[in-house]
Amino acid sequence: MIDYQKTIEKIHNDVMAYAKLGKQADYIPALAAVNPDQFGLCIQTLEGGRYSTGQWNTRFSIQSISKVFTLAMCLSIRGDALWQRMGKEPSGNAFNSLVQLEYEHGIPRNPFINAGAIVMADILLSNLKNPEEEYLAFIRSISNNPTIEYNEALAESEQSCGYLNAAIANLLKYHHNIENHIHDVLHFYFMTCSVEMSCEELSRGFLPFANHRMQFSFEGCALTASQVKRINAIMQTCGFYDEAGEFSYLVGLPGKSGVGGGIAAIYPSRYSVAVWSPRLNEKGNSVMGLKALELLTSETSESIF
Amino acid sequence: MIDYQKTIEKIHNDVMAYAKLGKQADYIPALAAVNPDQFGLCIQTLEGGRYSTGQWNTRFSIQSISKVFTLAMCLSIRGDALWQRMGKEPSGNAFNSLVQLEYEHGIPRNPFINAGAIVMADILLSNLKNPEEEYLAFIRSISNNPTIEYNEALAESEQSCGYLNAAIANLLKYHHNIENHIHDVLHFYFMTCSVEMSCEELSRGFLPFANHRMQFSFEGCALTASQVKRINAIMQTCGFYDEAGEFSYLVGLPGKSGVGGGIAAIYPSRYSVAVWSPRLNEKGNSVMGLKALELLTSETSESIF
Amino acid sequence: MIDYQKTIEKIHNDVMAYAKLGKQADYIPALAAVNPDQFGLCIQTLEGGRYSTGQWNTRFSIQSISKVFTLAMCLSIRGDALWQRMGKEPSGNAFNSLVQLEYEHGIPRNPFINAGAIVMADILLSNLKNPEEEYLAFIRSISNNPTIEYNEALAESEQSCGYLNAAIANLLKYHHNIENHIHDVLHFYFMTCSVEMSCEELSRGFLPFANHRMQFSFEGCALTASQVKRINAIMQTCGFYDEAGEFSYLVGLPGKSGVGGGIAAIYPSRYSVAVWSPRLNEKGNSVMGLKALELLTSETSESIF
Amino acid sequence: MIDYQKTIEKIHNDVMAYAKLGKQADYIPALAAVNPDQFGLCIQTLEGGRYSTGQWNTRFSIQSISKVFTLAMCLSIRGDALWQRMGKEPSGNAFNSLVQLEYEHGIPRNPFINAGAIVMADILLSNLKNPEEEYLAFIRSISNNPTIEYNEALAESEQSCGYLNAAIANLLKYHHNIENHIHDVLHFYFMTCSVEMSCEELSRGFLPFANHRMQFSFEGCALTASQVKRINAIMQTCGFYDEAGEFSYLVGLPGKSGVGGGIAAIYPSRYSVAVWSPRLNEKGNSVMGLKALELLTSETSESIF
Repeated sequence: MIDYQKTIEKIHNDVMAYAKLGKQADYIPALAAVNPDQFGLCIQTLEGGRYSTGQWNTRFSIQSISKVFTLAMCLSIRGDALWQRMGKEPSGNAFNSLVQLEYEHGIPRNPFINAGAIVMADILLSNLKNPEEEYLAFIRSISNNPTIEYNEALAESEQSCGYLNAAIANLLKYHHNIENHIHDVLHFYFMTCSVEMSCEELSRGFLPFANHRMQFSFEGCALTASQVKRINAIMQTCGFYDEAGEFSYLVGLPGKSGVGGGIAAIYPSRYSVAVWSPRLNEKGNSVMGLKALELLTSETSESIF
Repeated sequence: MIDYQKTIEKIHNDVMAYAKLGKQADYIPALAAVNPDQFGLCIQTLEGGRYSTGQWNTRFSIQSISKVFTLAMCLSIRGDALWQRMGKEPSGNAFNSLVQLEYEHGIPRNPFINAGAIVMADILLSNLKNPEEEYLAFIRSISNNPTIEYNEALAESEQSCGYLNAAIANLLKYHHNIENHIHDVLHFYFMTCSVEMSCEELSRGFLPFANHRMQFSFEGCALTASQVKRINAIMQTCGFYDEAGEFSYLVGLPGKSGVGGGIAAIYPSRYSVAVWSPRLNEKGNSVMGLKALELLTSETSESIF
Repeated sequence: MIDYQKTIEKIHNDVMAYAKLGKQADYIPALAAVNPDQFGLCIQTLEGGRYSTGQWNTRFSIQSISKVFTLAMCLSIRGDALWQRMGKEPSGNAFNSLVQLEYEHGIPRNPFINAGAIVMADILLSNLKNPEEEYLAFIRSISNNPTIEYNEALAESEQSCGYLNAAIANLLKYHHNIENHIHDVLHFYFMTCSVEMSCEELSRGFLPFANHRMQFSFEGCALTASQVKRINAIMQTCGFYDEAGEFSYLVGLPGKSGVGGGIAAIYPSRYSVAVWSPRLNEKGNSVMGLKALELLTSETSESIF
Repeated sequence: MIDYQKTIEKIHNDVMAYAKLGKQADYIPALAAVNPDQFGLCIQTLEGGRYSTGQWNTRFSIQSISKVFTLAMCLSIRGDALWQRMGKEPSGNAFNSLVQLEYEHGIPRNPFINAGAIVMADILLSNLKNPEEEYLAFIRSISNNPTIEYNEALAESEQSCGYLNAAIANLLKYHHNIENHIHDVLHFYFMTCSVEMSCEELSRGFLPFANHRMQFSFEGCALTASQVKRINAIMQTCGFYDEAGEFSYLVGLPGKSGVGGGIAAIYPSRYSVAVWSPRLNEKGNSVMGLKALELLTSETSESIF
């Protein structure tokens, strides 16, 4: 029987050796202003256990982790028709590469690169009456927490300097893979990225993905067990930009990272975990977060492989 | 309790609907001469169960499935130093793409694209006294079957028209990532691909990968549990060329395919499975084999996600 | 002594065999509305001769031919410092490729692909007090014709659906190669493309490039003989998108084409020529225009090679 | 009236300021052994003038300059059918890029990148009875010099380490754009590159390209005036790898360079010039050679533009 609390405290201690490595995202003031010397981790098990350490209760910008929630909603709404608008193969390139998008005529490689998430934002805009409200309602529902909020100032700050994402959105529109106005799509996309959650809240929000044999039904989003498993599969192969193979190799859990320094992952049938530390490696993934998860699966010998 | 025998017989029946789809490999006479209307499947469980259907006892050319055995030997010999010579990220391109290799200066994306396997062949040539004998001895040992053989005529036939692999090998040599003579490396590479095994033999050879908590020690190859899990992780993210995401999405098991029409996969802690049918889809993976495995994990609700 | 009038009349007759080949630009209504069955040609010699045939007097949208005028102004203003913002090598790709721009970190290959022209528009915005007025004044001056005008409606129409150019501009801005607001840069860029000139006016405007031993000094633009020759050199290597080699091979004159169906070219020390016909080949160059120029240099045996 | 002798002596003096810049080719011992501190230049006019300076009489390896002679022979033999096997557009990439070749399915961009020249070698092998003898006979004939020879030892040395060219040849063969045995094609290709000529001999060999109104008929090669002009056009757009635009911009003459440090160019209707100095810039073109030609066209105000 694994003592998760003891395990994560040991891990917390061990990862302090990496505390000063990497560099936090600084392309917008709001992200640069976060104190980089923070680390939090929270595990929640299907049996109801909750184990946490460090700044597990501090909210941070979930950024690209939101793509998992977005994918859940899009799959719920569009089913497999979603895959006419994007692929589900790993990209083999940096998360924001325009090259592949141009060669593949505006069909993003997968939902977890920015191009894919921008198309998903467009889909939600076309299919929801009040996209921002409904999206937030879903996250609040799945996290069982009505206080979760967007950081609208951060979203606006990102949009004001988001030239690369604007380039991607324009290229998608050129290839007829965006239906709505580019500005609106980008605004909604940046809003979804701006959601702020703590490790405790995020692990709660990911618990249903670990529980793939239970009903997945939350406000605005209902998925079959098979669909949940398929989201997990995409997390496994595409969740870490061009470091997906490395994460799969070292950690062996489906997960998703964000430039805010967060990582959420699941061990199917057992637990979900969220970890957060702002300093990133050169691939854009949290240094201490990656290390903590590697230690977690090593020490517990629990991974999907 | 799942009745695997009944399940696979039902699957066999169901996949017959796909019997005429796809096209077998025909770039060399020896592969083109195989009767394409064959299908075999064999599951072997860690508890010793063995369930089979169709042409489970007919040998076929394992082709790229051999890359898993090669990786096991290379990891055993070189440990993590192996990753100085290649990456472990999915490629996002066709299995034989030179483009990525040129952009990345001769470092193959992962061990399961041809470029990676050619570098592994070079490593074995440099580190083994009698590479061909020792490689075969390992496969015979892990499969517990002393009758497994190379098909040397097929290997020679492949080499005689293997211009693309020769281009890859030359590009690797240009980037100083091949130590031995190109001709020798390619000869050994094609020999490893030419090994012939039946579904029964192949599933037996993959069983130790499913059994990642037992000792992995066979003639010429000893791995830790962690190393076995990492091989499984690479199968998951890179085992199906540019269809790895699709396989992960539909099947959800680590596996590896070959152009001979074979696929081997594992369900960790439970079973290994080999399936074979020569007709391939346009990505080079067996049509009936993929469908059979998709049905297997759907019907049993057993997958890693 | 060549009888240019007789020659071009014969050419006009000969190119009618190609009258229905190709397809006019139709991505905006204003271009699609042009009667495609038109052909005009005008040669003007340094000695003051003027020879014309067909719809030589009908104005059309000069589109990318404007890039030559823009380059002249930018070289006049910035000198060789211009080349810190863009290259002068042929692109080897379609005129609007984002791939090269991404690999080369926001430095356009040359001034005659859209990315280069957008950077030049940015440069003029930064360096001119009244960019639109001054640009038009220069074109009126070099063409010796005060009636030349922008087609502002066409410019706005292009901008409203110019997603690919917007993608390019955003990518340039991301790489810090645009100083002004993207919307302003694109507006000015599309304005420069919207200028309408007849073959007669356009050949007049190109005559100074043929006359590289005379003073090149027009309102807002003064160049040395060496600078004029270098503009000609860039026309030669980069003037026809990914058909520059073909044009050089078949015609052998420095020139520039536009999607409005116009082509302007020069025979140094001798003449300038403008030809126009709306139907384009798949590379975006006028079918009859290309053929007419090929016949012109073949029949006269006059080319730079 | 230009005093060419005085001009080139002044140029010789001026370029000495660049004498130590760049690095000679050292990938094979035979090239690395050349004394890098040499400079030679020779101009020959159609009127029979010959002006030379420095080591104009020292033979060097012409390397890629041979591609012009090869193209002349191939055009003579195959006519425009040659362009079914290769393009004539500038490549926009380094001279040995495999990327473009893979994207374009084995059709080289132009005859002056290595891939194109390897296909031309294959064409000569298929069409000539004694390719090596006949090729040398043509060069001797066009240069009016029966003593010109291959350097067979150098050719063998190049082939023994020519992994990149072997990769290219294998990729071409894979795409069915090589008819003969790869080894034979590469052997002949390296032989053509190994020809040794002095500046005096090389300028003599290029004089017929400048003289495009005279009959072009030499042993084994007869071309129309139009074909000669087209070879010149290809030199202009493709003669300097990914520095073709720069050369066109600074020099303004059709020409071709080689890694042996030689450059040959022509001023149509007037003269041919060969210059040689072993130190190369990072693009593989002779530093002093480029500078000398830039000064030549600047000082004389003679260029094609």
